[in-house]
Amino acid sequence: MAVNLEAPRAEDLLTISGVRLGIARAGIRKPNRKDLLVVALEDGARVAGVFTRNRFCAAPVVLCREHLAGKEPIRAIVVNTGVANAGTGEQGLEDARAVCAAVARLFDAPASSVLPLSTGVIMEPLPVERIARGLPECFSDLAPDHWASAAEAIMTTDTVAKAVSRQAVIDGRTVTVTGIAKGAGMIEPNMATMLAVIATDANVGQDALRYLVREAADASFNAITVDGDTSTNDTLLLVATGHAAHAQIVGEGTAEFGQLAQAVTEVARILAQAIVRDGEGATKFITITVDEGETREECARVAKAIANSPLVKTAFFASDPNLGRILAAIGNAGIADLDASRVGVRLGDVTVVEEGGRAAAYTEADGQRVMKPAEIAVRVTLGRGDESASVWTCDFSYDYVKINADYRS
Amino acid sequence: MAVNLEAPRAEDLLTISGVRLGIARAGIRKPNRKDLLVVALEDGARVAGVFTRNRFCAAPVVLCREHLAGKEPIRAIVVNTGVANAGTGEQGLEDARAVCAAVARLFDAPASSVLPLSTGVIMEPLPVERIARGLPECFSDLAPDHWASAAEAIMTTDTVAKAVSRQAVIDGRTVTVTGIAKGAGMIEPNMATMLAVIATDANVGQDALRYLVREAADASFNAITVDGDTSTNDTLLLVATGHAAHAQIVGEGTAEFGQLAQAVTEVARILAQAIVRDGEGATKFITITVDEGETREECARVAKAIANSPLVKTAFFASDPNLGRILAAIGNAGIADLDASRVGVRLGDVTVVEEGGRAAAYTEADGQRVMKPAEIAVRVTLGRGDESASVWTCDFSYDYVKINADYRS
Repeated sequence: MAVNLEAPRAEDLLTISGVRLGIARAGIRKPNRKDLLVVALEDGARVAGVFTRNRFCAAPVVLCREHLAGKEPIRAIVVNTGVANAGTGEQGLEDARAVCAAVARLFDAPASSVLPLSTGVIMEPLPVERIARGLPECFSDLAPDHWASAAEAIMTTDTVAKAVSRQAVIDGRTVTVTGIAKGAGMIEPNMATMLAVIATDANVGQDALRYLVREAADASFNAITVDGDTSTNDTLLLVATGHAAHAQIVGEGTAEFGQLAQAVTEVARILAQAIVRDGEGATKFITITVDEGETREECARVAKAIANSPLVKTAFFASDPNLGRILAAIGNAGIADLDASRVGVRLGDVTVVEEGGRAAAYTEADGQRVMKPAEIAVRVTLGRGDESASVWTCDFSYDYVKINADYRS
Repeated sequence: MAVNLEAPRAEDLLTISGVRLGIARAGIRKPNRKDLLVVALEDGARVAGVFTRNRFCAAPVVLCREHLAGKEPIRAIVVNTGVANAGTGEQGLEDARAVCAAVARLFDAPASSVLPLSTGVIMEPLPVERIARGLPECFSDLAPDHWASAAEAIMTTDTVAKAVSRQAVIDGRTVTVTGIAKGAGMIEPNMATMLAVIATDANVGQDALRYLVREAADASFNAITVDGDTSTNDTLLLVATGHAAHAQIVGEGTAEFGQLAQAVTEVARILAQAIVRDGEGATKFITITVDEGETREECARVAKAIANSPLVKTAFFASDPNLGRILAAIGNAGIADLDASRVGVRLGDVTVVEEGGRAAAYTEADGQRVMKPAEIAVRVTLGRGDESASVWTCDFSYDYVKINADYRS
């Protein structure tokens, strides 16, 4: 069902010097399926993260934040599918700590040097024993070229694995960025969550890395929406091993930072878009761009109001150029002083709305033509400023209801 | 498909002294169907209204606001279905004015004494000629006991007409309140919108009436959600003819105001709930109550976050006690300092979450039992204050997608 999305070929994924990946079939929830991943980082690697804002954040998110804020350098990331370890209270924290300790023992490091990520059923206890028993298999599997396999190991209801590599030249040296992600719905607490790990061999200072991961997230994972929900476990980690031989990037204003940011953001955006392309029941991939806003934030708000409207999403599913639904969503975005008579809308190459009303030259036939393809671009102009924002989303189909209604039965 | 909702019987609807209703088949969009309603008000009636906050508000909403703010007493309300006269710019305003003028001629009154309401396809011109030709039929049909017929005349994709009456005793006199409404989706710009007209023979001052309509709306139409959208045309009008022989109610703090407010709010709530029961594709009617909040507003925010989550709504459709989705929606409601470990959730008579985690005594069998019925109560406790709010919603079914995807094809 995924919209124009193919699984990455192992040979297209570039290794990152200083990063090794090991996978196991630990039988966490289902037998004989890759469900456990350890990412080992060589000494000197730096890590920064962006996490869910959901107040019911899961135990692994709490520990990630704690360990990243601590003094200990991060030596490993451990990802399990099957159980999210969310809504599990104190016991959940203890369980996540136990998994970190078990990983740490393999590396002869303290537990606080391990970042745990979990995705799967929520409000069920983490099967610490089964995870601990699977860890040696991960450890002996560690290799730099296991990115494709790692992308498969973190899938839940994803139908296609998500991974991509990009390179940049910084200071005359080639720098590589490789990332993996999993999604399905933006939230689906039984068996999902958005998780992504992106690694680069670039040499980046800790402050610049923290800035970079937020900037990349804003232009990628924070700009997608499948159903408007945010999971308890959403996590993006950015690893920089520093093995590339360019001078360290410390300031976010430098040309070198910009070159790296471009590569990291592109990897993040491709992964984020892959999550939408593989959204539950998705049959269309929709890019919504809002221009001429007063602020970037209000542009994003309008774009998300369109992207999250069930009526707009069902109209996309039906390939129905239902202008009224788009206009109503714009009017509903909470911009109190929006002048409706300045708003314009284009679908693909067709101007459908100008000055807040149906465009003079617009015909229903033109509208239907541009709504047919699997990829649709919506462009809104607000006529009140110079700012812009883009959001990517998918449609709402019978299968979305089917997947989410039948899921546990 | 409507959930526990029956059409009102004409004999159960009480007349309001000073109000007459006339219906016509004007062929506005489809032939031979009631599609035009005129409500005639005797001299001395007062009217107050609450309108959509959508920035793309329709021409009739603009005129209603204008005429209510003017000096002229309101003599008539005219409601057409078929065409919403929204997204129609200057021409739309001229068309709505022309309809008001045509109605006003029948009453020998100025156009500004008429309030126009429209619902139907948006971005299409209002067929003023057809409406004007239908008006004499409405005029000759005017009678105090045509409430049931009026409720039918304003239906679009509603499957059941919505009308109800209540009485109160104020100052020793019986006062009557009768209302009609139409809904379907909260928004459905092709053929819907929320419209309601409630009339009472109570004697109420203009300021108290304005206060009353807002209070009643907050506890009814503003507390329902089918799909989180707000239409371009949403309108609630409250008419008070003053024919009841009690002393005029002028202050909102009085016992008499409270008695009237209770009856009006009950009528408004029954109509609002009827809109949810008849929501597009609805198979369940869900009451979400949030207690122990710091403010009423944050309680309503949490309730709406649950009510509008597509994942929660599909779980209700599947009768799946999917606690994780409810918790995630609560955590997602934007209360930055919510202490998740104090949150509790009950489904019907079953405690499912306590202290932010699965309740010790909870069993999946209990959860499934309470999710089965067509009416489900969700009660959330936030553990941070004394305020409460309730919201009513319906589930998200295959038919929601079907109705909204197939609609124009």
